[in-house]
Amino acid sequence: MQSPHMRPTGPKHTYHEVDNWVERDPDDDTPRLECGVFGIYGMEDASAVTVLGLHALQHRGQEACGIASCDGKRFYTERSHGLVGDVFTGPDLTQRLQGNAAIGHTRYSTAGGAFIRNVQPMFADLDTGGIAIAHNGNLTNFMHLRTKLVAGGSIFQSTSDSEVILHLIARSRGIKIMDRFIETMSHIEGGFALVALTRTMMIGARDPLGIRPLVIGRLGNAYVLASETCALDMIGATFVRDVEHGEVVQIDQDGLKSFKPFERKAARPCLFEYVYFARPDSVVNGKSIYEVRKAMGRQLAIEHAADADIIVPVPDSGVPAALGFAEQSGLPFELGIIRNHYVGRTFIQPTQNIRDLGVRKKHSPNRVVLEGKRVILIDDSIVRGTTSVKIVRMVRAAGAKEVHLRSASPPIMWPDYYGIDMPDRDKLMAATHTMEEMRKKLECDSLGFLSVDGLYKAMGHNGRNPDTPQYTDHYFTGDYPTRLTDKEDAVNEKEGNGQLSLLVNV
Amino acid sequence: MQSPHMRPTGPKHTYHEVDNWVERDPDDDTPRLECGVFGIYGMEDASAVTVLGLHALQHRGQEACGIASCDGKRFYTERSHGLVGDVFTGPDLTQRLQGNAAIGHTRYSTAGGAFIRNVQPMFADLDTGGIAIAHNGNLTNFMHLRTKLVAGGSIFQSTSDSEVILHLIARSRGIKIMDRFIETMSHIEGGFALVALTRTMMIGARDPLGIRPLVIGRLGNAYVLASETCALDMIGATFVRDVEHGEVVQIDQDGLKSFKPFERKAARPCLFEYVYFARPDSVVNGKSIYEVRKAMGRQLAIEHAADADIIVPVPDSGVPAALGFAEQSGLPFELGIIRNHYVGRTFIQPTQNIRDLGVRKKHSPNRVVLEGKRVILIDDSIVRGTTSVKIVRMVRAAGAKEVHLRSASPPIMWPDYYGIDMPDRDKLMAATHTMEEMRKKLECDSLGFLSVDGLYKAMGHNGRNPDTPQYTDHYFTGDYPTRLTDKEDAVNEKEGNGQLSLLVNV
Amino acid sequence: MQSPHMRPTGPKHTYHEVDNWVERDPDDDTPRLECGVFGIYGMEDASAVTVLGLHALQHRGQEACGIASCDGKRFYTERSHGLVGDVFTGPDLTQRLQGNAAIGHTRYSTAGGAFIRNVQPMFADLDTGGIAIAHNGNLTNFMHLRTKLVAGGSIFQSTSDSEVILHLIARSRGIKIMDRFIETMSHIEGGFALVALTRTMMIGARDPLGIRPLVIGRLGNAYVLASETCALDMIGATFVRDVEHGEVVQIDQDGLKSFKPFERKAARPCLFEYVYFARPDSVVNGKSIYEVRKAMGRQLAIEHAADADIIVPVPDSGVPAALGFAEQSGLPFELGIIRNHYVGRTFIQPTQNIRDLGVRKKHSPNRVVLEGKRVILIDDSIVRGTTSVKIVRMVRAAGAKEVHLRSASPPIMWPDYYGIDMPDRDKLMAATHTMEEMRKKLECDSLGFLSVDGLYKAMGHNGRNPDTPQYTDHYFTGDYPTRLTDKEDAVNEKEGNGQLSLLVNV
Amino acid sequence: MQSPHMRPTGPKHTYHEVDNWVERDPDDDTPRLECGVFGIYGMEDASAVTVLGLHALQHRGQEACGIASCDGKRFYTERSHGLVGDVFTGPDLTQRLQGNAAIGHTRYSTAGGAFIRNVQPMFADLDTGGIAIAHNGNLTNFMHLRTKLVAGGSIFQSTSDSEVILHLIARSRGIKIMDRFIETMSHIEGGFALVALTRTMMIGARDPLGIRPLVIGRLGNAYVLASETCALDMIGATFVRDVEHGEVVQIDQDGLKSFKPFERKAARPCLFEYVYFARPDSVVNGKSIYEVRKAMGRQLAIEHAADADIIVPVPDSGVPAALGFAEQSGLPFELGIIRNHYVGRTFIQPTQNIRDLGVRKKHSPNRVVLEGKRVILIDDSIVRGTTSVKIVRMVRAAGAKEVHLRSASPPIMWPDYYGIDMPDRDKLMAATHTMEEMRKKLECDSLGFLSVDGLYKAMGHNGRNPDTPQYTDHYFTGDYPTRLTDKEDAVNEKEGNGQLSLLVNV
Repeated sequence: MQSPHMRPTGPKHTYHEVDNWVERDPDDDTPRLECGVFGIYGMEDASAVTVLGLHALQHRGQEACGIASCDGKRFYTERSHGLVGDVFTGPDLTQRLQGNAAIGHTRYSTAGGAFIRNVQPMFADLDTGGIAIAHNGNLTNFMHLRTKLVAGGSIFQSTSDSEVILHLIARSRGIKIMDRFIETMSHIEGGFALVALTRTMMIGARDPLGIRPLVIGRLGNAYVLASETCALDMIGATFVRDVEHGEVVQIDQDGLKSFKPFERKAARPCLFEYVYFARPDSVVNGKSIYEVRKAMGRQLAIEHAADADIIVPVPDSGVPAALGFAEQSGLPFELGIIRNHYVGRTFIQPTQNIRDLGVRKKHSPNRVVLEGKRVILIDDSIVRGTTSVKIVRMVRAAGAKEVHLRSASPPIMWPDYYGIDMPDRDKLMAATHTMEEMRKKLECDSLGFLSVDGLYKAMGHNGRNPDTPQYTDHYFTGDYPTRLTDKEDAVNEKEGNGQLSLLVNV
Repeated sequence: MQSPHMRPTGPKHTYHEVDNWVERDPDDDTPRLECGVFGIYGMEDASAVTVLGLHALQHRGQEACGIASCDGKRFYTERSHGLVGDVFTGPDLTQRLQGNAAIGHTRYSTAGGAFIRNVQPMFADLDTGGIAIAHNGNLTNFMHLRTKLVAGGSIFQSTSDSEVILHLIARSRGIKIMDRFIETMSHIEGGFALVALTRTMMIGARDPLGIRPLVIGRLGNAYVLASETCALDMIGATFVRDVEHGEVVQIDQDGLKSFKPFERKAARPCLFEYVYFARPDSVVNGKSIYEVRKAMGRQLAIEHAADADIIVPVPDSGVPAALGFAEQSGLPFELGIIRNHYVGRTFIQPTQNIRDLGVRKKHSPNRVVLEGKRVILIDDSIVRGTTSVKIVRMVRAAGAKEVHLRSASPPIMWPDYYGIDMPDRDKLMAATHTMEEMRKKLECDSLGFLSVDGLYKAMGHNGRNPDTPQYTDHYFTGDYPTRLTDKEDAVNEKEGNGQLSLLVNV
Repeated sequence: MQSPHMRPTGPKHTYHEVDNWVERDPDDDTPRLECGVFGIYGMEDASAVTVLGLHALQHRGQEACGIASCDGKRFYTERSHGLVGDVFTGPDLTQRLQGNAAIGHTRYSTAGGAFIRNVQPMFADLDTGGIAIAHNGNLTNFMHLRTKLVAGGSIFQSTSDSEVILHLIARSRGIKIMDRFIETMSHIEGGFALVALTRTMMIGARDPLGIRPLVIGRLGNAYVLASETCALDMIGATFVRDVEHGEVVQIDQDGLKSFKPFERKAARPCLFEYVYFARPDSVVNGKSIYEVRKAMGRQLAIEHAADADIIVPVPDSGVPAALGFAEQSGLPFELGIIRNHYVGRTFIQPTQNIRDLGVRKKHSPNRVVLEGKRVILIDDSIVRGTTSVKIVRMVRAAGAKEVHLRSASPPIMWPDYYGIDMPDRDKLMAATHTMEEMRKKLECDSLGFLSVDGLYKAMGHNGRNPDTPQYTDHYFTGDYPTRLTDKEDAVNEKEGNGQLSLLVNV
Repeated sequence: MQSPHMRPTGPKHTYHEVDNWVERDPDDDTPRLECGVFGIYGMEDASAVTVLGLHALQHRGQEACGIASCDGKRFYTERSHGLVGDVFTGPDLTQRLQGNAAIGHTRYSTAGGAFIRNVQPMFADLDTGGIAIAHNGNLTNFMHLRTKLVAGGSIFQSTSDSEVILHLIARSRGIKIMDRFIETMSHIEGGFALVALTRTMMIGARDPLGIRPLVIGRLGNAYVLASETCALDMIGATFVRDVEHGEVVQIDQDGLKSFKPFERKAARPCLFEYVYFARPDSVVNGKSIYEVRKAMGRQLAIEHAADADIIVPVPDSGVPAALGFAEQSGLPFELGIIRNHYVGRTFIQPTQNIRDLGVRKKHSPNRVVLEGKRVILIDDSIVRGTTSVKIVRMVRAAGAKEVHLRSASPPIMWPDYYGIDMPDRDKLMAATHTMEEMRKKLECDSLGFLSVDGLYKAMGHNGRNPDTPQYTDHYFTGDYPTRLTDKEDAVNEKEGNGQLSLLVNV
């Protein structure tokens, strides 16, 4: 057999496949979403446009990224650990990733480890032709499906739930790829936004409740799919509409076709997109993130005023809420904390000597602003509380007379299973402490959380509708919007996952 | 001869010495300062503390960094391209860089190319023992001195002006290292802040006018030197005082000794530290950067008010001035532009197709905020104007009805020779255009610059003292505070620098 | 979900998955075998012993290598491009690859490209537990099986025929792994030697004709499997016996069990192992490679004597035959050609200037030996003739008066489908030229090939038995010992292989 | 200052300067020479030709290599750890290293560590223009000169004695570069062969006794300099003559000019080039290495015959002597030991388990040949004896009935100071043991060394002339041909070398 491809010149690369676990910075206590997805169909140099789109979605995952393109005959993929801007560079990018259609992915790992094999898009060569898939979210019946597929003789190469989707498509007996895709949708549970690419079409899909976001845009004659509108703005595309909850869209040379194969339910988008994940310049499900966050700040000022001198945000995510709080309270907004954006991956063996320094690499106090002041500190949310207490201490050490900590979201009390990397319940501060215990542990003079109804008000409602809640909000309420099959499935709990037998390197 | 050192185990690294030019992002029109310096003497794990200090100075140079440590007998150095957090990592850091004293450097290249050989600290083994040196600034008689040293038989391994300092020390006939150091100071001209390390002491020095900053701190019994106070805050050190202009400090086991070997002149610190370079949480020469910048914004609002709806900063550097402008004008401060911090080094061949997208990777419009608004846009400075016009266009394309551009510093009309990487005069917009020409080219509805006297007012003075100006301000005024020997030196101009004969790879 | 494994310290590696085609050195006209396999069961530090065993098999594949080990609970794998000695190094090797059982592989690619995904051992996590497999040889019904498996919903991650074997095992409905393995054997055709590793056993298997070699050894209580005996010698293991043709051996804590599930046929081992591939110190199917090659040289001297002064081998593979030829002919053996073992992967753009030099990096003439001499040049085989003519010219340019070229094997006239990377028939010199045409093209004074019967004589027979040939010898005779399903399969020929749709990077 | 060079496209490389000690393989007991040098003047694509020349000299140093080229205006250099064939590759080689003149170097480190800074050619930019220098050999007054230069203010960047030469040239007050070069020659002692490149000429020089070799060749109109003739053969150049002992040749556009600035002495080339270092196809000082080695073998057979069955060389270096021994003795020459050329840099933590295997990665026994035989084993030399005893054991373990060890050179009793990396005297077996003690330690049945006079006979003389020995032979005789200033210099011994203060990384 001939080598299918031969690059005639240029430096040789040698690869060595081993494990690559990126440890979480212990300083970093923010919840993380695993992914951003992007796709474009019908535009020259589609991969270059995809790089730009992924740039704008980099905040949704900095660990790894990948692009798959198709020129109508062949697929080209490139995947790597690292930032989009460090991976997809070089003058030959559009040679490496040819064609008028491409999909891409940025990733922070939740399910599965940090192996390169888990990096998306994933590709499979079916009897009906190749398909590449990129996925934001998490399947709540991943283990269940995987176990069944392995029993049927499927071989998994990753620990990613996206591969489950590929295997379901491969096993489907549908004739047309869209039939197979829709059949697959009927098997999976959870929150997901998918983009897929075949030789002749791009597909977008969103879970039945619209937990994870996905929008449609146009750039000239091309169609674009993206996790957030900020990716459309980056490339100058116009916003068309959100993909609807439970909708599957097919984009090919005949334009866009919509499928709604599922029983219609009311949408319940994830509130955490508004609280933390989405970029402030994005519009998600019709609402401006920036305006919603300012409204949270205003509502928080109404619910939890304090006698103080200045409003200080925990940057960057606390800034819009702090602006809203300042506006409502009439107190001055000041940059009392400066964020260092050049953190990198420094890991120094923490000798006692160094540990005693109590260093915070990411945030520094602006001493002149804080000295002698009564400070209202605005953060977007409090998860474990480990970060918050360090910031309170830092602010106080810089001379603040009082520190009043405010969270622009309600207490987080339940873990997530739809793609947000949150700790277990016993690590969630609000799940295990009373308000006064928290205040003491956080070493602040007063503590206030936005109420659940207050959050719904900031979203433009009168409050939460307890019968048919308008949003996915289980982290605050414990009300999970879907079945949690894997969690229920005692068999999985006990027997574990066979794949885990391959541990150290692959 | 035996190998002096043998690491018995661990992975082998293989090095290949070639050129490594980091191209400037064409999107990026900000002036850059080449360096931050840091040193600590008298503390266990000095190199680990130095890593943390350099973290805080990363904004002063992201291209390369290095550390030299000394355990009283031997020196250890490590230098690399890349961010501090990516280079100085690993559990064995304090094994690689041993000792209770260390100095470090972050670098953006001005003089010299991007060769690893130019990365600091630089080390020389003199007959009196080893010395490592790290340097922020630029010598204005670098070429002059270098030519003389080469004629005397000195061999240069870099194109960095720091190596000139090392050779002068090596050639000095002084017996004590401090005598040699002071003799060397008498030969060099320009703006500089130096930290040096020998087996028994750490030295700090600042140029006779104090153009470049350097501060002294204490951490327990240890002494710290750093370009800015934010590095002291990072490690929890207390601020002692600035190194004075023209002062040389010697720090050893007997404490700190001060030398002032030069004729006393009035200090003239660089204004651009306040306008752009220093971090907002630093205090430079006794003044808070954040407060000064807010004062610039207030003064700018007094000098150049406009009938508008919102104040929008060009982030991040324009934020404090915009807060000051909003405060003075009573108009609301809004985050109308979002900065993307994950830019990386993406380089895509700019096909016409991609170029037409007019993409801005670093800044995105917050459409909801800008739409239909009359916007006052606050930037810290305008150099070439190429960035500014793109931002004005972006804001207008996002729906702004009017765009009033304001610069929180005076027009930049003259190049710098003290370590700021500014373009030649013919590329400086304000040097080659009238105010109205600029307004048209920048496509804004109105344009305003802070006046020179206004800037001095924001610094706390009544205005500029034309006889003995309080600051280095030639970029605005053409009044260079020192001789510019190399510039004057016609011989150098014509014959060039012999070192340039070694070009491509070393 | 928790990360299944977390290495707490040590440098981070970042991986970027792209293509990696190693181009064949145009100087190199030797046939290549794709693989060596090795396995050990029941010995501490099994992976370290495997590294040593693979060292001894490095001549069977220098492009890539891999090891999979198992500690009875978990599997550990590491695979890389490069030499064994460059890949499997470092003091933590036995930490990276734990357990008392391990299998390994060295590889030169035939089927499939040079992607890291094609590097072996391959691993699959079945419902019955994990299995790793390493394979030397080639399946002649690879495409046929792959197409069927893909139609049934299997997803392939490589273009390697080894993955077909894994999928067949995964799809088998057998309860016990050995049942599945034997069922799989019944589906595959071609030449192969397999080693596999499960949590509880090591498996070895050889194709029904024993085309590819595999031997059993013992090292203390441990069992060893290896392609050649030289790997046993390397680790000090004792040779037990060859795995028989069509035999499957199961090695577990109860010792070795043998299965012979197939209809018994006479063995037909591959003659090319004797002619070229195996190391001279190996004993293959009971015969010493070195002695056989010397016998080929003696027989060649009988068949094709010449009036000459010296016998000169083309090193290294021609040396034993040249010693035999010298012994038989009574002419002195001289090192007239020196081999350079440090060739590396130099690729210089062949400007006309450089091309005119006619450089041979691998072989140099020993001018003093050759000058004025009538030389009999002994090579092991002639494939395309491109190398041979360059060597003849080199010898003549060094002053040889006459050059008589002798091949210690018969004319190669037919391609191989069992794991030897030979060119197509129209590139095989002997298939397309008469003897005299060859002599002219090779620019030698006389040309002689060992006869087929002569080769069989050197192997210790009276000659080839045309009814039931004792060996696989189709490259000389066109008599293929098995079906060639893929070749026959017109569908594959026309439609190609779906996997090829994923081309550039994966 | 503008960046002198800007590569517009292509991947960016990031460099990290750290230490890189290559440990000696404990299996490897051979003496090593540190360098090969090559230069070509007056040929297009000079750097590509230099790559080929260095290929042929790779046996003289596998640790690192470098090339400096000049296009008449600028110099281009590239240096790296690794093999020539792995470093100097890529289609852009002649773009990276431009010009019609180039010099190159392959290196095994003796003086100085393995830092990239020690890799040659070294470059200096003098007031008279740039000069690059590559050096084979060792200065015996290196420390002495270095100390004086450092006291005079010279800064060293390496621990290589080549840098001493550069500094002497830089410090020389001569007007013309050749005057400076010759003045420098008068200061240095030891054995050396130098090639240097300026903008207008290439220089070659050999020490006054011609200890290290250097030859002149022509390729068309171009001149070539090389350590051995095999480099001329590689590129098709014709041999002109050896550079004479104490000669300096200047090659420029007017051709070759010869200088003999020193008092004429008789030449004393190094015998170890004949015994071990030079490639068998080279002709050194008019004598074929291959023929000389065969003659050593014949002489050895005369001096130390034994009643045996076969002659077996320790490959590769023992092969020619074994052929000579076989010829003289009439006993059959057999490849009883096979050499593995794919050793790589494997380092496995030697657990007791692995150590007990007594593995030899480089040599394997050819069991069939050795079994039951009385073997005469021919090695080129015996240094520490550690390798020899392992080989004797290996041969015996493979079944040899008797092992008679013969060294084709006399007992090595004194260390070298001219560029051969030999152990100290107390590690040299022959310096510390009687012949019978050695025989016992080497576990052989008999032991024989070629006599000193026998070696001179093999070189074509009647024996050694004790008054004016024809060769450098101190390792056998203790008769050092030059002063050993550094050794004599007690100050250096005690105080050490200041440069050693910079230890771990740079």
